[in-house]
Amino acid sequence: MTEQAQNKAPAFTAQVMTIYPDMFPGVLGQSLAGKGLNEGLWALKTLDIRDFTRDKHRSVDDTPAGGGPGMVMRADILGDAIDHARAGDGSKGPLVYMSPRGRPFDQEMAEDWLEQGGVTLLCGRFEGIDQRVLDTYDITEVSLGDFILSGGEPAATAMLDAVVRLIPGVMGKRETLAEESFTSGLLEYPHYTRPTVWRDQEIPQVLTSGHHGKIADWRLAQAEETTRLRRPDMWSSYEREPKKKSVKDK
Amino acid sequence: MTEQAQNKAPAFTAQVMTIYPDMFPGVLGQSLAGKGLNEGLWALKTLDIRDFTRDKHRSVDDTPAGGGPGMVMRADILGDAIDHARAGDGSKGPLVYMSPRGRPFDQEMAEDWLEQGGVTLLCGRFEGIDQRVLDTYDITEVSLGDFILSGGEPAATAMLDAVVRLIPGVMGKRETLAEESFTSGLLEYPHYTRPTVWRDQEIPQVLTSGHHGKIADWRLAQAEETTRLRRPDMWSSYEREPKKKSVKDK
Repeated sequence: MTEQAQNKAPAFTAQVMTIYPDMFPGVLGQSLAGKGLNEGLWALKTLDIRDFTRDKHRSVDDTPAGGGPGMVMRADILGDAIDHARAGDGSKGPLVYMSPRGRPFDQEMAEDWLEQGGVTLLCGRFEGIDQRVLDTYDITEVSLGDFILSGGEPAATAMLDAVVRLIPGVMGKRETLAEESFTSGLLEYPHYTRPTVWRDQEIPQVLTSGHHGKIADWRLAQAEETTRLRRPDMWSSYEREPKKKSVKDK
Repeated sequence: MTEQAQNKAPAFTAQVMTIYPDMFPGVLGQSLAGKGLNEGLWALKTLDIRDFTRDKHRSVDDTPAGGGPGMVMRADILGDAIDHARAGDGSKGPLVYMSPRGRPFDQEMAEDWLEQGGVTLLCGRFEGIDQRVLDTYDITEVSLGDFILSGGEPAATAMLDAVVRLIPGVMGKRETLAEESFTSGLLEYPHYTRPTVWRDQEIPQVLTSGHHGKIADWRLAQAEETTRLRRPDMWSSYEREPKKKSVKDK
Protein backbone atom coordinates (compact mmCIF):
# COMPACT_ATOMS: atom_id res chain seq x y z
CA MET A 1 0.00 0.00 0.00
CA THR A 2 1.21 3.46 -0.86
CA GLU A 3 1.26 6.44 1.47
CA GLN A 4 -1.83 7.74 -0.25
CA ALA A 5 -3.71 4.60 0.63
CA GLN A 6 -2.85 4.91 4.30
CA ASN A 7 -3.94 8.53 4.52
CA LYS A 8 -7.15 8.56 2.58
CA ALA A 9 -10.39 6.59 2.64
CA PRO A 10 -11.24 4.87 -0.64
CA ALA A 11 -13.55 6.88 -2.90
CA PHE A 12 -15.62 3.79 -3.60
CA THR A 13 -16.26 0.52 -1.76
CA ALA A 14 -17.72 -2.43 -3.61
CA GLN A 15 -19.17 -5.38 -1.72
CA VAL A 16 -19.81 -8.52 -3.73
CA MET A 17 -22.00 -11.30 -2.35
CA THR A 18 -21.28 -14.55 -4.20
CA ILE A 19 -20.82 -18.29 -3.91
CA TYR A 20 -17.65 -17.87 -6.00
CA PRO A 21 -15.52 -15.44 -3.99
CA ASP A 22 -12.39 -16.61 -5.86
CA MET A 23 -13.72 -14.92 -8.99
CA PHE A 24 -12.79 -11.57 -7.44
CA PRO A 25 -10.93 -9.31 -7.99
CA GLY A 26 -10.29 -11.23 -11.29
CA VAL A 27 -9.76 -8.74 -14.12
CA LEU A 28 -10.44 -5.94 -11.62
CA GLY A 29 -7.14 -6.83 -9.96
CA GLN A 30 -5.21 -6.05 -13.15
CA SER A 31 -4.46 -3.03 -15.30
CA LEU A 32 -5.77 0.36 -14.13
CA ALA A 33 -8.52 -0.98 -11.88
CA GLY A 34 -6.00 -3.24 -10.15
CA LYS A 35 -3.50 -0.42 -9.71
CA GLY A 36 -6.26 1.72 -8.18
CA LEU A 37 -7.19 -1.16 -5.87
CA ASN A 38 -3.60 -1.57 -4.70
CA GLU A 39 -3.29 2.15 -4.14
CA GLY A 40 -6.43 2.20 -2.00
CA LEU A 41 -8.38 4.46 -4.39
CA TRP A 42 -11.19 1.94 -4.14
CA ALA A 43 -11.90 -1.11 -1.97
CA LEU A 44 -13.38 -4.50 -2.75
CA LYS A 45 -14.99 -6.76 -0.14
CA THR A 46 -16.09 -10.23 -1.09
CA LEU A 47 -18.67 -12.04 1.00
CA ASP A 48 -19.09 -15.81 0.59
CA ILE A 49 -22.80 -16.60 0.76
CA ARG A 50 -21.96 -20.18 1.81
CA ASP A 51 -20.68 -18.83 5.13
CA PHE A 52 -24.33 -18.31 6.06
CA THR A 53 -25.48 -21.88 5.47
CA ARG A 54 -26.32 -24.19 8.37
CA ASP A 55 -25.98 -27.70 7.00
CA LYS A 56 -22.84 -29.76 6.50
CA HIS A 57 -23.23 -29.60 2.70
CA ARG A 58 -23.30 -25.79 2.83
CA SER A 59 -26.35 -25.76 0.49
CA VAL A 60 -27.57 -22.36 -0.62
CA ASP A 61 -30.39 -23.58 -2.86
CA ASP A 62 -33.45 -25.80 -3.00
CA THR A 63 -36.03 -26.93 -5.60
CA PRO A 64 -38.56 -24.36 -6.88
CA ALA A 65 -41.94 -24.22 -5.18
CA GLY A 66 -44.56 -25.23 -7.73
CA GLY A 67 -42.08 -27.36 -9.69
CA GLY A 68 -39.90 -26.68 -12.70
CA PRO A 69 -36.25 -27.09 -13.58
CA GLY A 70 -33.20 -25.77 -11.74
CA MET A 71 -32.70 -24.59 -8.21
CA VAL A 72 -33.60 -21.41 -6.32
CA MET A 73 -31.37 -19.65 -3.78
CA ARG A 74 -32.93 -19.71 -0.32
CA ALA A 75 -34.40 -16.64 1.37
CA ASP A 76 -33.21 -17.54 4.88
CA ILE A 77 -29.56 -17.84 3.87
CA LEU A 78 -29.56 -14.77 1.63
CA GLY A 79 -31.40 -12.77 4.30
CA ASP A 80 -28.71 -13.49 6.89
CA ALA A 81 -25.96 -12.74 4.36
CA ILE A 82 -27.55 -9.42 3.38
CA ASP A 83 -28.05 -8.40 7.02
CA HIS A 84 -24.38 -9.07 7.63
CA ALA A 85 -23.25 -7.24 4.48
CA ARG A 86 -25.32 -4.16 5.19
CA ALA A 87 -24.51 -3.92 8.89
CA GLY A 88 -20.84 -3.09 8.40
CA ASP A 89 -19.44 0.42 8.46
CA GLY A 90 -18.16 -0.05 4.94
CA SER A 91 -21.59 -0.58 3.46
CA LYS A 92 -22.33 2.37 1.22
CA GLY A 93 -24.68 2.96 -1.69
CA PRO A 94 -27.46 0.79 -3.05
CA LEU A 95 -28.09 -2.93 -2.64
CA VAL A 96 -28.27 -4.38 -6.13
CA TYR A 97 -29.36 -7.79 -7.41
CA MET A 98 -27.93 -8.80 -10.78
CA SER A 99 -30.93 -9.97 -12.79
CA PRO A 100 -32.07 -10.08 -16.41
CA ARG A 101 -35.41 -8.78 -15.08
CA GLY A 102 -33.76 -5.61 -13.84
CA ARG A 103 -33.27 -2.08 -15.12
CA PRO A 104 -30.53 -2.05 -17.77
CA PHE A 105 -27.19 -0.85 -16.40
CA ASP A 106 -25.98 2.39 -17.99
CA GLN A 107 -23.41 5.14 -17.61
CA GLU A 108 -25.71 7.22 -15.41
CA MET A 109 -26.01 4.34 -12.94
CA ALA A 110 -22.22 3.93 -12.85
CA GLU A 111 -21.87 7.63 -12.01
CA ASP A 112 -24.58 7.42 -9.37
CA TRP A 113 -22.96 4.47 -7.58
CA LEU A 114 -19.65 6.32 -7.51
CA GLU A 115 -21.34 9.41 -6.10
CA GLN A 116 -22.91 7.29 -3.35
CA GLY A 117 -19.45 5.96 -2.49
CA GLY A 118 -20.21 2.28 -2.96
CA VAL A 119 -22.51 -0.53 -3.92
CA THR A 120 -23.38 -4.02 -2.67
CA LEU A 121 -23.85 -6.48 -5.53
CA LEU A 122 -25.75 -9.69 -4.88
CA CYS A 123 -24.78 -12.33 -7.45
CA GLY A 124 -27.32 -15.07 -8.03
CA ARG A 125 -26.73 -18.48 -9.58
CA PHE A 126 -29.09 -21.21 -10.77
CA GLU A 127 -32.68 -20.17 -11.62
CA GLY A 128 -32.57 -17.12 -9.39
CA ILE A 129 -33.31 -16.15 -5.79
CA ASP A 130 -36.40 -16.44 -3.63
CA GLN A 131 -38.73 -13.53 -4.44
CA ARG A 132 -39.31 -12.79 -0.74
CA VAL A 133 -35.74 -11.50 -0.49
CA LEU A 134 -36.50 -8.94 -3.20
CA ASP A 135 -39.77 -8.02 -1.45
CA THR A 136 -38.16 -7.64 1.97
CA TYR A 137 -35.14 -5.48 1.25
CA ASP A 138 -34.77 -2.25 -0.67
CA ILE A 139 -33.07 -4.00 -3.58
CA THR A 140 -32.57 -2.57 -7.04
CA GLU A 141 -32.67 -5.23 -9.75
CA VAL A 142 -30.13 -4.35 -12.43
CA SER A 143 -29.50 -6.12 -15.74
CA LEU A 144 -26.32 -6.08 -17.77
CA GLY A 145 -28.36 -6.62 -20.93
CA ASP A 146 -30.81 -8.90 -22.70
CA PHE A 147 -28.86 -12.12 -22.33
CA ILE A 148 -28.40 -14.84 -19.73
CA LEU A 149 -25.13 -15.35 -17.86
CA SER A 150 -24.05 -18.35 -15.79
CA GLY A 151 -24.39 -16.10 -12.74
CA GLY A 152 -24.19 -12.53 -11.56
CA GLU A 153 -20.40 -12.53 -11.26
CA PRO A 154 -19.37 -11.62 -14.84
CA ALA A 155 -22.02 -8.86 -14.77
CA ALA A 156 -20.74 -7.54 -11.44
CA THR A 157 -17.21 -7.46 -12.85
CA ALA A 158 -18.22 -5.42 -15.90
CA MET A 159 -20.32 -2.99 -13.86
CA LEU A 160 -17.56 -2.42 -11.31
CA ASP A 161 -15.08 -1.83 -14.12
CA ALA A 162 -17.37 0.90 -15.49
CA VAL A 163 -17.54 2.57 -12.07
CA VAL A 164 -13.91 2.20 -11.03
CA ARG A 165 -12.50 3.88 -14.13
CA LEU A 166 -14.43 7.03 -13.15
CA ILE A 167 -12.61 7.33 -9.80
CA PRO A 168 -10.19 10.27 -9.94
CA GLY A 169 -6.64 8.94 -10.29
CA VAL A 170 -7.53 5.54 -11.71
CA MET A 171 -7.20 6.47 -15.38
CA GLY A 172 -3.91 7.66 -16.80
CA LYS A 173 -3.61 10.35 -19.41
CA ARG A 174 -3.27 7.73 -22.16
CA GLU A 175 -6.76 6.50 -21.41
CA THR A 176 -8.67 9.67 -20.39
CA LEU A 177 -12.34 9.74 -19.61
CA ALA A 178 -13.85 9.29 -23.03
CA GLU A 179 -17.44 9.75 -21.97
CA GLU A 180 -18.49 11.33 -25.26
CA SER A 181 -20.70 8.46 -26.26
CA PHE A 182 -23.12 8.62 -23.40
CA THR A 183 -22.78 12.13 -22.02
CA SER A 184 -23.11 14.06 -25.28
CA GLY A 185 -25.98 11.81 -26.31
CA LEU A 186 -24.12 10.76 -29.46
CA LEU A 187 -21.97 7.80 -30.41
CA GLU A 188 -18.30 8.61 -30.89
CA TYR A 189 -16.83 9.91 -34.13
CA PRO A 190 -14.20 7.70 -35.85
CA HIS A 191 -10.58 7.80 -34.64
CA TYR A 192 -7.39 7.77 -36.70
CA THR A 193 -3.69 7.81 -35.90
CA ARG A 194 -0.34 7.21 -37.62
CA PRO A 195 0.61 5.82 -40.08
CA THR A 196 -0.96 8.49 -42.31
CA VAL A 197 -1.28 5.97 -45.12
CA TRP A 198 -2.05 2.35 -44.31
CA ARG A 199 -2.75 -0.22 -47.02
CA ASP A 200 -3.48 2.61 -49.47
CA GLN A 201 -5.96 4.22 -47.14
CA GLU A 202 -5.30 7.79 -46.01
CA ILE A 203 -6.47 9.53 -42.88
CA PRO A 204 -9.34 11.92 -43.86
CA GLN A 205 -7.64 15.14 -45.02
CA VAL A 206 -9.57 17.42 -42.71
CA LEU A 207 -7.92 15.74 -39.68
CA THR A 208 -4.44 16.62 -40.90
CA SER A 209 -5.45 20.17 -41.98
CA GLY A 210 -4.66 21.73 -38.65
CA HIS A 211 -7.94 23.67 -38.90
CA HIS A 212 -9.52 23.12 -35.48
CA GLY A 213 -12.95 24.49 -36.38
CA LYS A 214 -13.28 22.26 -39.41
CA ILE A 215 -12.06 19.24 -37.45
CA ALA A 216 -14.69 19.86 -34.79
CA ASP A 217 -17.43 20.26 -37.40
CA TRP A 218 -16.38 17.07 -39.17
CA ARG A 219 -16.32 15.10 -35.94
CA LEU A 220 -19.76 16.34 -34.91
CA ALA A 221 -21.19 15.49 -38.34
CA GLN A 222 -19.66 11.99 -38.17
CA ALA A 223 -20.96 11.41 -34.65
CA GLU A 224 -24.44 12.55 -35.66
CA GLU A 225 -24.48 10.40 -38.79
CA THR A 226 -23.26 7.28 -36.95
CA THR A 227 -25.85 7.76 -34.20
CA ARG A 228 -28.67 8.37 -36.68
CA LEU A 229 -27.85 5.19 -38.59
CA ARG A 230 -27.02 2.88 -35.70
CA ARG A 231 -29.12 4.02 -32.79
CA PRO A 232 -32.44 5.56 -33.75
CA ASP A 233 -33.38 5.57 -30.05
CA MET A 234 -30.41 7.75 -29.06
CA TRP A 235 -30.90 9.89 -32.14
CA SER A 236 -34.52 10.72 -31.25
CA SER A 237 -33.49 11.82 -27.76
CA TYR A 238 -30.64 13.88 -29.16
CA GLU A 239 -32.86 15.60 -31.71
CA ARG A 240 -35.30 16.52 -28.99
CA GLU A 241 -32.65 17.84 -26.63
CA PRO A 242 -29.01 17.91 -27.76
CA LYS A 243 -26.80 17.86 -24.67
CA LYS A 244 -23.81 19.43 -26.34
CA LYS A 245 -23.95 20.90 -29.82
CA SER A 246 -20.21 20.72 -30.41
CA VAL A 247 -17.47 18.24 -29.76
CA LYS A 248 -14.86 21.01 -29.84
CA ASP A 249 -14.38 20.93 -26.09
CA LYS A 250 -13.45 17.31 -26.07
CA MET B 1 -7.78 -33.43 -20.14
CA THR B 2 -10.44 -36.07 -20.02
CA GLU B 3 -11.00 -38.81 -22.55
CA GLN B 4 -13.84 -36.82 -24.04
CA ALA B 5 -11.49 -33.91 -24.70
CA GLN B 6 -9.06 -36.09 -26.60
CA ASN B 7 -11.72 -37.61 -28.81
CA LYS B 8 -13.86 -34.67 -29.71
CA ALA B 9 -13.24 -31.22 -31.20
CA PRO B 10 -14.47 -28.36 -29.01
CA ALA B 11 -17.98 -27.14 -29.86
CA PHE B 12 -16.83 -23.54 -29.66
CA THR B 13 -13.49 -21.78 -30.05
CA ALA B 14 -13.04 -18.25 -28.75
CA GLN B 15 -10.09 -16.15 -29.84
CA VAL B 16 -9.41 -13.02 -27.80
CA MET B 17 -7.11 -10.29 -29.12
CA THR B 18 -5.93 -8.12 -26.23
CA ILE B 19 -2.98 -6.26 -24.72
CA TYR B 20 -3.86 -7.92 -21.40
CA PRO B 21 -3.66 -11.66 -22.18
CA ASP B 22 -3.31 -12.42 -18.44
CA MET B 23 -6.93 -11.35 -17.96
CA PHE B 24 -7.97 -14.65 -19.58
CA PRO B 25 -9.44 -17.10 -18.81
CA GLY B 26 -10.16 -15.16 -15.57
CA VAL B 27 -13.66 -16.01 -14.32
CA LEU B 28 -14.12 -18.18 -17.42
CA GLY B 29 -11.53 -20.54 -15.93
CA GLN B 30 -13.74 -21.16 -12.91
CA SER B 31 -17.09 -22.74 -12.14
CA LEU B 32 -19.00 -24.34 -15.02
CA ALA B 33 -17.25 -22.46 -17.83
CA GLY B 34 -13.87 -23.47 -16.39
CA LYS B 35 -14.91 -27.09 -16.05
CA GLY B 36 -16.07 -27.08 -19.69
CA LEU B 37 -12.76 -25.52 -20.71
CA ASN B 38 -10.76 -28.20 -18.90
CA GLU B 39 -12.90 -30.91 -20.43
CA GLY B 40 -12.31 -29.57 -23.93
CA LEU B 41 -15.97 -28.69 -24.54
CA TRP B 42 -14.76 -25.28 -25.66
CA ALA B 43 -11.37 -23.72 -26.38
CA LEU B 44 -9.91 -20.31 -25.62
CA LYS B 45 -7.00 -18.79 -27.52
CA THR B 46 -5.51 -15.54 -26.36
CA LEU B 47 -3.50 -13.41 -28.78
CA ASP B 48 -1.26 -10.67 -27.38
CA ILE B 49 -1.55 -7.65 -29.68
CA ARG B 50 1.86 -6.43 -28.46
CA ASP B 51 3.47 -9.40 -30.21
CA PHE B 52 2.81 -7.51 -33.47
CA THR B 53 4.61 -4.30 -32.51
CA ARG B 54 7.94 -3.36 -34.09
CA ASP B 55 9.57 -0.95 -31.66
CA LYS B 56 11.44 -1.72 -28.49
CA HIS B 57 8.71 -0.12 -26.37
CA ARG B 58 6.13 -2.44 -27.92
CA SER B 59 3.77 0.53 -28.48
CA VAL B 60 0.34 -0.28 -29.84
CA ASP B 61 -1.04 3.25 -29.85
CA ASP B 62 -0.36 6.81 -30.98
CA THR B 63 -1.96 10.26 -30.62
CA PRO B 64 -5.27 10.93 -32.44
CA ALA B 65 -5.06 12.55 -35.88
CA GLY B 66 -6.74 15.96 -35.59
CA GLY B 67 -5.94 16.27 -31.90
CA GLY B 68 -7.89 15.47 -28.76
CA PRO B 69 -7.27 13.48 -25.59
CA GLY B 70 -6.17 9.88 -25.23
CA MET B 71 -4.51 7.49 -27.61
CA VAL B 72 -5.69 5.47 -30.59
CA MET B 73 -4.64 1.87 -31.39
CA ARG B 74 -2.68 1.70 -34.63
CA ALA B 75 -4.06 0.21 -37.85
CA ASP B 76 -0.78 -1.38 -38.95
CA ILE B 77 -0.31 -3.34 -35.75
CA LEU B 78 -3.95 -4.38 -35.46
CA GLY B 79 -4.02 -5.32 -39.15
CA ASP B 80 -1.11 -7.73 -38.72
CA ALA B 81 -2.61 -9.15 -35.55
CA ILE B 82 -5.99 -9.72 -37.22
CA ASP B 83 -4.39 -11.37 -40.27
CA HIS B 84 -2.58 -13.74 -37.94
CA ALA B 85 -5.67 -14.46 -35.85
CA ARG B 86 -7.89 -15.17 -38.84
CA ALA B 87 -5.36 -17.29 -40.75
CA GLY B 88 -5.33 -20.18 -38.29
CA ASP B 89 -7.40 -23.32 -38.68
CA GLY B 90 -9.06 -22.59 -35.38
CA SER B 91 -10.57 -19.34 -36.55
CA LYS B 92 -14.33 -19.79 -36.73
CA GLY B 93 -17.27 -17.43 -36.67
CA PRO B 94 -17.39 -13.66 -36.85
CA LEU B 95 -14.68 -11.09 -36.14
CA VAL B 96 -16.06 -8.77 -33.49
CA TYR B 97 -14.82 -5.44 -32.13
CA MET B 98 -16.02 -4.55 -28.63
CA SER B 99 -17.31 -1.02 -28.91
CA PRO B 100 -19.95 1.22 -27.32
CA ARG B 101 -20.82 2.23 -30.90
CA GLY B 102 -21.80 -1.33 -31.77
CA ARG B 103 -24.97 -3.33 -31.93
CA PRO B 104 -26.07 -4.30 -28.40
CA PHE B 105 -25.14 -7.86 -27.49
CA ASP B 106 -28.15 -10.09 -26.86
CA GLN B 107 -29.15 -13.72 -26.41
CA GLU B 108 -29.71 -14.21 -30.13
CA MET B 109 -26.13 -13.15 -30.85
CA ALA B 110 -24.82 -15.58 -28.22
CA GLU B 111 -26.74 -18.39 -29.89
CA ASP B 112 -25.50 -17.36 -33.34
CA TRP B 113 -21.83 -17.36 -32.28
CA LEU B 114 -22.23 -20.83 -30.80
CA GLU B 115 -23.87 -22.07 -33.98
CA GLN B 116 -20.95 -20.69 -36.00
CA GLY B 117 -18.56 -22.62 -33.75
CA GLY B 118 -16.53 -19.66 -32.60
CA VAL B 119 -15.80 -15.96 -32.47
CA THR B 120 -12.75 -13.68 -32.56
CA LEU B 121 -13.08 -10.80 -30.12
CA LEU B 122 -10.88 -7.72 -30.61
CA CYS B 123 -10.53 -5.83 -27.33
CA GLY B 124 -9.65 -2.16 -27.67
CA ARG B 125 -8.17 0.08 -25.01
CA PHE B 126 -7.65 3.86 -24.80
CA GLU B 127 -9.86 6.05 -27.03
CA GLY B 128 -10.45 3.26 -29.55
CA ILE B 129 -8.91 1.83 -32.69
CA ASP B 130 -8.06 3.37 -36.07
CA GLN B 131 -11.22 3.50 -38.18
CA ARG B 132 -9.40 2.06 -41.22
CA VAL B 133 -9.23 -1.30 -39.45
CA LEU B 134 -13.02 -1.32 -39.19
CA ASP B 135 -13.32 -0.26 -42.84
CA THR B 136 -10.87 -2.92 -44.10
CA TYR B 137 -12.10 -6.06 -42.40
CA ASP B 138 -15.54 -7.56 -42.14
CA ILE B 139 -15.84 -6.58 -38.49
CA THR B 140 -19.04 -6.54 -36.46
CA GLU B 141 -19.02 -3.84 -33.80
CA VAL B 142 -20.79 -5.14 -30.71
CA SER B 143 -21.61 -3.25 -27.53
CA LEU B 144 -22.20 -4.75 -24.08
CA GLY B 145 -24.45 -1.80 -23.22
CA ASP B 146 -24.69 1.96 -22.88
CA PHE B 147 -21.71 2.43 -20.60
CA ILE B 148 -17.94 2.82 -20.96
CA LEU B 149 -15.51 0.15 -19.78
CA SER B 150 -11.75 0.47 -19.26
CA GLY B 151 -11.35 -1.79 -22.29
CA GLY B 152 -13.00 -4.58 -24.23
CA GLU B 153 -11.83 -7.33 -21.88
CA PRO B 154 -14.61 -7.27 -19.25
CA ALA B 155 -17.16 -7.15 -22.09
CA ALA B 156 -15.51 -10.10 -23.86
CA THR B 157 -15.62 -12.06 -20.60
CA ALA B 158 -19.34 -11.48 -20.09
CA MET B 159 -20.20 -12.27 -23.72
CA LEU B 160 -18.17 -15.50 -23.70
CA ASP B 161 -19.85 -16.54 -20.45
CA ALA B 162 -23.24 -16.11 -22.14
CA VAL B 163 -22.14 -18.29 -25.08
CA VAL B 164 -20.26 -20.97 -23.16
CA ARG B 165 -23.16 -21.84 -20.85
CA LEU B 166 -25.18 -22.79 -23.95
CA ILE B 167 -22.69 -25.48 -24.99
CA PRO B 168 -24.19 -28.93 -24.38
CA GLY B 169 -22.60 -30.46 -21.28
CA VAL B 170 -21.42 -27.22 -19.69
CA MET B 171 -24.46 -26.65 -17.50
CA GLY B 172 -25.41 -29.17 -14.86
CA LYS B 173 -28.99 -30.04 -13.98
CA ARG B 174 -28.90 -27.68 -11.00
CA GLU B 175 -28.42 -24.76 -13.34
CA THR B 176 -30.44 -25.71 -16.43
CA LEU B 177 -30.90 -23.48 -19.43
CA ALA B 178 -33.25 -20.88 -18.06
CA GLU B 179 -33.80 -19.05 -21.30
CA GLU B 180 -37.36 -18.04 -20.45
CA SER B 181 -36.58 -14.34 -20.28
CA PHE B 182 -35.41 -13.88 -23.81
CA THR B 183 -36.86 -16.79 -25.75
CA SER B 184 -40.47 -16.52 -24.59
CA GLY B 185 -40.33 -12.75 -25.03
CA LEU B 186 -41.24 -12.22 -21.37
CA LEU B 187 -39.25 -11.56 -18.23
CA GLU B 188 -39.21 -14.44 -15.77
CA TYR B 189 -41.90 -15.05 -13.18
CA PRO B 190 -40.84 -14.90 -9.50
CA HIS B 191 -39.20 -17.92 -7.88
CA TYR B 192 -39.74 -19.37 -4.42
CA THR B 193 -38.28 -22.26 -2.45
CA ARG B 194 -38.16 -23.60 1.09
CA PRO B 195 -38.61 -22.48 3.85
CA THR B 196 -42.36 -22.19 3.25
CA VAL B 197 -42.59 -19.38 5.77
CA TRP B 198 -39.71 -16.93 6.08
CA ARG B 199 -39.92 -13.86 8.32
CA ASP B 200 -43.71 -14.17 8.35
CA GLN B 201 -43.91 -14.31 4.56
CA GLU B 202 -45.45 -17.36 2.97
CA ILE B 203 -44.87 -18.78 -0.48
CA PRO B 204 -47.92 -17.88 -2.65
CA GLN B 205 -50.53 -20.60 -1.97
CA VAL B 206 -51.04 -21.50 -5.61
CA LEU B 207 -47.44 -22.76 -5.81
CA THR B 208 -47.99 -25.27 -3.02
CA SER B 209 -51.44 -26.34 -4.32
CA GLY B 210 -50.09 -29.09 -6.55
CA HIS B 211 -52.46 -27.90 -9.30
CA HIS B 212 -50.18 -27.73 -12.34
CA GLY B 213 -52.63 -25.84 -14.56
CA LYS B 214 -53.18 -23.10 -12.00
CA ILE B 215 -49.45 -22.84 -11.33
CA ALA B 216 -48.76 -22.36 -15.05
CA ASP B 217 -51.49 -19.73 -15.33
CA TRP B 218 -50.18 -17.85 -12.30
CA ARG B 219 -46.63 -17.90 -13.62
CA LEU B 220 -47.68 -16.64 -17.03
CA ALA B 221 -49.74 -13.83 -15.47
CA GLN B 222 -46.78 -12.83 -13.25
CA ALA B 223 -44.35 -12.89 -16.17
CA GLU B 224 -46.71 -10.77 -18.27
CA GLU B 225 -47.33 -8.26 -15.50
CA THR B 226 -43.60 -7.89 -14.71
CA THR B 227 -42.75 -7.41 -18.37
CA ARG B 228 -45.55 -4.89 -18.92
CA LEU B 229 -44.40 -2.81 -15.95
CA ARG B 230 -40.64 -3.05 -16.39
CA ARG B 231 -40.02 -3.39 -20.09
CA PRO B 232 -42.60 -1.64 -22.28
CA ASP B 233 -40.33 -2.38 -25.29
CA MET B 234 -40.45 -6.16 -24.73
CA TRP B 235 -44.14 -5.95 -23.88
CA SER B 236 -45.04 -4.27 -27.19
CA SER B 237 -43.23 -6.98 -29.16
CA TYR B 238 -44.90 -9.71 -27.12
CA GLU B 239 -48.35 -8.25 -27.58
CA ARG B 240 -47.81 -8.13 -31.33
CA GLU B 241 -46.46 -11.66 -31.53
CA PRO B 242 -46.34 -13.81 -28.42
CA LYS B 243 -43.68 -16.49 -28.89
CA LYS B 244 -45.15 -18.90 -26.39
CA LYS B 245 -48.55 -18.39 -24.83
CA SER B 246 -47.89 -20.70 -21.92
CA VAL B 247 -45.00 -21.35 -19.57
CA LYS B 248 -46.30 -24.86 -18.81
CA ASP B 249 -43.59 -26.51 -20.87
CA LYS B 250 -40.83 -24.91 -18.94
